[in-house]
Amino acid sequence: MRTAFYISDGTAITAEVFGHALLTLFPAQFEHVTIPFVETSDMAEQVKQRINDRYKTTGQRPLIFQTFVDDALRQIINSSNGICYDFLNTFVEPIQRELGVAPVPKTHRTHSIHEKTYDFRIDAVNYALANDDGSNLKNFDQADIILVGVSRSGKTPTSLYLALQYGIKAANYPFVEEDMEQLRLPEMLKRNKAKLFGLTITPERLSQIREQRRANSRYASLRQCQLELAEVENLYLHEQIPYLNSTHLSIEEISAKIIAKTGLKRHKY
Amino acid sequence: MRTAFYISDGTAITAEVFGHALLTLFPAQFEHVTIPFVETSDMAEQVKQRINDRYKTTGQRPLIFQTFVDDALRQIINSSNGICYDFLNTFVEPIQRELGVAPVPKTHRTHSIHEKTYDFRIDAVNYALANDDGSNLKNFDQADIILVGVSRSGKTPTSLYLALQYGIKAANYPFVEEDMEQLRLPEMLKRNKAKLFGLTITPERLSQIREQRRANSRYASLRQCQLELAEVENLYLHEQIPYLNSTHLSIEEISAKIIAKTGLKRHKY
Repeated sequence: MRTAFYISDGTAITAEVFGHALLTLFPAQFEHVTIPFVETSDMAEQVKQRINDRYKTTGQRPLIFQTFVDDALRQIINSSNGICYDFLNTFVEPIQRELGVAPVPKTHRTHSIHEKTYDFRIDAVNYALANDDGSNLKNFDQADIILVGVSRSGKTPTSLYLALQYGIKAANYPFVEEDMEQLRLPEMLKRNKAKLFGLTITPERLSQIREQRRANSRYASLRQCQLELAEVENLYLHEQIPYLNSTHLSIEEISAKIIAKTGLKRHKY
Repeated sequence: MRTAFYISDGTAITAEVFGHALLTLFPAQFEHVTIPFVETSDMAEQVKQRINDRYKTTGQRPLIFQTFVDDALRQIINSSNGICYDFLNTFVEPIQRELGVAPVPKTHRTHSIHEKTYDFRIDAVNYALANDDGSNLKNFDQADIILVGVSRSGKTPTSLYLALQYGIKAANYPFVEEDMEQLRLPEMLKRNKAKLFGLTITPERLSQIREQRRANSRYASLRQCQLELAEVENLYLHEQIPYLNSTHLSIEEISAKIIAKTGLKRHKY
């Protein structure tokens, strides 16, 4: 099996995203090796040795996705037996030409605590945790967005993702039977109606998810899921709450769609 | 100000990471516009119009970071007045040559629910939430890792990040005074000692963070923070628990370091 190395003087997250986007285009299996924080020439020499050893044992040149900012470190890796794909170096020059500005190479400029938006993200995570599952209605005034939906429709992981990745203060509120039967919103939601965003899901999938939680319960039964979802979708229409169906979407996709639909301000690029 | 567009037929997360890694090298300000889920030629034409309008109003050609897999859609964006940087297209051909395998273009192959590891990640998020803050000692046997440390040393956001990004089941346990005074681990941690990873932080930073929570309390006082941290670092040494100092690190950096140090198996690339 071919080995793919993701190497950087930082977290190597960018190198992983870069390599992953490319390798998933190919119908082939890879062994993945991530090596972050390669910050000295001694460390870079050791990594070069690992690459060369891998070449020797497998007979195939490893693919190297690297995002070094430090030129000397990059050269060491480039001198290995791996094949280096270096998107920073490839694109810096044309961008420099277009901008008419020279780059100022610095490490740890991405994914670091020094990013201007870092504190927003940590505050938002704390907010999302404290306001998960309708636990703190009185804080809803501070929310950037309030996700609503029936139990297990994807609100919690989506709130956390919005907070962690984008610094968005996302609260969430699970509708209880009382809200739905009366087809009305609790007072605290009504006050913040412009912030509401609904999630829905197919009854079949919801029932499956709930079964894992409480097998053979009324809560997990298809009939109960059908009832709750019909009511909640009625409520969305009746109150004109924007919503989407999460059944076939990942939390990344749900989050990207919510941001695109609402125009929410994000705190990370 | 120059505008940077991040455009894709998927979430555009890859396009953002790609463009961000490049633009942060330049000492310049940009206006960032992300447009995900551009899935039809009509939508692509609308985006092209937005790019051209931006060029007209600013007099500067927008920078376009795009990751279309669909060739027809890419062509439409390429025909705009923006300057397109396309790392997929740039690197696919050399990788294809090296692998001797043709790419099979498909959208939604990254950041989608169809990734093999998606369910791991959702399970891990639920696990991290249920086992936050020592709330469920009896589940520690199921953990992949148990973060330990004093209150507010960064355990919770790190657990959530490890779960969300890497599908790692991360529990966390805040030491209470009793544990520390006696310099001993609770039984449930002792049983899972190989899974423990400690966090520490400088007393000054800890006191600052705690002040935001409970201003002017004993809990937040520098003296109390110094005491607790000295005790907890003693405990790490005494019990030979690997640990790191989170003071100057982002959750991405803490997570990458923990994975590199422990060799934890991740469920995402």
